[in-house]
Amino acid sequence: MSMMDSAITYFEGLQDRICDALAEVDGESFREDSWKRDGGGGGRSRVLTGGKLFEKAGVNFSDVHGELRPDFSGALPGDGQQFRATGVSLVIHPRNPYIPTVHANFRRVERGSVGWFGGGADLTPYYVDPKDASHFHKTLKGACEKGGGAGVYERYKAWCDRYFFIAHRNEPRGIGGVFFDYLGAGAETTKRETGLEPAAFEANPESTFAFIRQVGDAFLQAYLPIVNEHKDAEFGDRERRWQLHRRGRYVEFNLVYDRGTVFGLRTDGRVESILMSLPPEVTWEYNYAPPVGSPEARSLEQIIARRNWADD
Amino acid sequence: MSMMDSAITYFEGLQDRICDALAEVDGESFREDSWKRDGGGGGRSRVLTGGKLFEKAGVNFSDVHGELRPDFSGALPGDGQQFRATGVSLVIHPRNPYIPTVHANFRRVERGSVGWFGGGADLTPYYVDPKDASHFHKTLKGACEKGGGAGVYERYKAWCDRYFFIAHRNEPRGIGGVFFDYLGAGAETTKRETGLEPAAFEANPESTFAFIRQVGDAFLQAYLPIVNEHKDAEFGDRERRWQLHRRGRYVEFNLVYDRGTVFGLRTDGRVESILMSLPPEVTWEYNYAPPVGSPEARSLEQIIARRNWADD
Repeated sequence: MSMMDSAITYFEGLQDRICDALAEVDGESFREDSWKRDGGGGGRSRVLTGGKLFEKAGVNFSDVHGELRPDFSGALPGDGQQFRATGVSLVIHPRNPYIPTVHANFRRVERGSVGWFGGGADLTPYYVDPKDASHFHKTLKGACEKGGGAGVYERYKAWCDRYFFIAHRNEPRGIGGVFFDYLGAGAETTKRETGLEPAAFEANPESTFAFIRQVGDAFLQAYLPIVNEHKDAEFGDRERRWQLHRRGRYVEFNLVYDRGTVFGLRTDGRVESILMSLPPEVTWEYNYAPPVGSPEARSLEQIIARRNWADD
Repeated sequence: MSMMDSAITYFEGLQDRICDALAEVDGESFREDSWKRDGGGGGRSRVLTGGKLFEKAGVNFSDVHGELRPDFSGALPGDGQQFRATGVSLVIHPRNPYIPTVHANFRRVERGSVGWFGGGADLTPYYVDPKDASHFHKTLKGACEKGGGAGVYERYKAWCDRYFFIAHRNEPRGIGGVFFDYLGAGAETTKRETGLEPAAFEANPESTFAFIRQVGDAFLQAYLPIVNEHKDAEFGDRERRWQLHRRGRYVEFNLVYDRGTVFGLRTDGRVESILMSLPPEVTWEYNYAPPVGSPEARSLEQIIARRNWADD
């Protein structure tokens, strides 16, 4: 079986496992849309809306291929214009403002003679609970070390902090997690894109894929305990208002900066699957800032501080 | 008085007149924030929120100057790195879904030895009323012809249709209006940017400025009668749901495509003033489409058709 086929099998299975677990904790089930892409390939989008816990949860699997548009030629490593990309991508927007929004993505891309893995997982709390943040980061750190050895968590945590940053607000999107790309694409690409040597585990596709599976498999362990911890927390208009306001920042990041979103929209991706990441309900209040010393202001301070949560 | 100073005086006065008229019809007043830009200049942002008619109305005046960032050097005509830009920019999001959202912008920019005017006005109805659309376009056409002669309305109507287009949805943002840029920047710039010869009125800065004033002065005549026509229309959850859904498209356009927004966010503009254009409340419902034959579906068809409303 080719590495692409192995990745597809794993990603399809991961989509199943994640959807099953989320549906079980929520009580509501996912509905599925299978779709084909005009240029080649297709996918299976699953969405749960109006759930008891999840206001909107989208978990997509896709396997697309075709020809790169000339203006995107420079955007990807590799050679030639033929590409193939497969992956799982999810964003979960809970109803309760005390449960954080979460995003994760795991993918394999091949272009010409070069193939690589990428992805990550990151948490966007409305109210920062240090116990959650620490649990989320420690779980990812454990998976990174198991799959990739010492030091790779720190490397991908820093990359995540750099990537999920809303430049015009001078503010991180959330409390981060891990982010990685071009894994296994070779020393030249890795150096060009990251300024660093590849990690040891990237020496061959098998060990790179093993790393991806470690992190992918850790997602539910990282997130579900946080859902369970806060699912019965009481909240009112004040918390909802803060949640809707912060969701505006999520939209700003995704539409202005997120490479996956922009790449998808400009390569004739399936729009409803790409924008499944957008929150179900959002507000933009002019010049809104929470009162100094309020739980909302303190949460924002903790987001801006970008702590090393795995050390706590 | 320099052309820049004349433009500033006119734009400040236009902001006053528009705010006064909107506040009068609403009953609620605008609050004003004056701000300074680190790189040079500043502005006066006015916002009315939670009004009887207007859920959020932002009318900004700004007069900024400074040095262009090197990566934006190619984005503007002219020479050297020093620029100055002044203008009025407004977006009005009414509460009643039967009243359209409107956007207008009038500006003067100078870079080195080259100066030009730009701007326009366009309407984004939730429910397309052909009488409104026709009135809006006819009013703008009258102003364009008065200020610029025959043919310029058609030219700027077509430009507006091209510009306010949500490529990933393959859908116009609304029913358009007029859009123009680089007016008076010279034949070379106009040909490069538009593929056309300059219009006759662009022969000198005075007649170009006179054109801008005609269109600027026409804004209230174009929009206020539409507000008055629908302000007492009854609506319920169904209309509100459609409005919130369509507002999502507005956000998608502004954050993904709008040059003013992107330019502002990347040149350290005042974020709260730039993003004042975003609707106060928005939803993204996965894969939502109105039932075939419903008023919502028919409105969307009329938006997609991009008719020549001034001919009706």
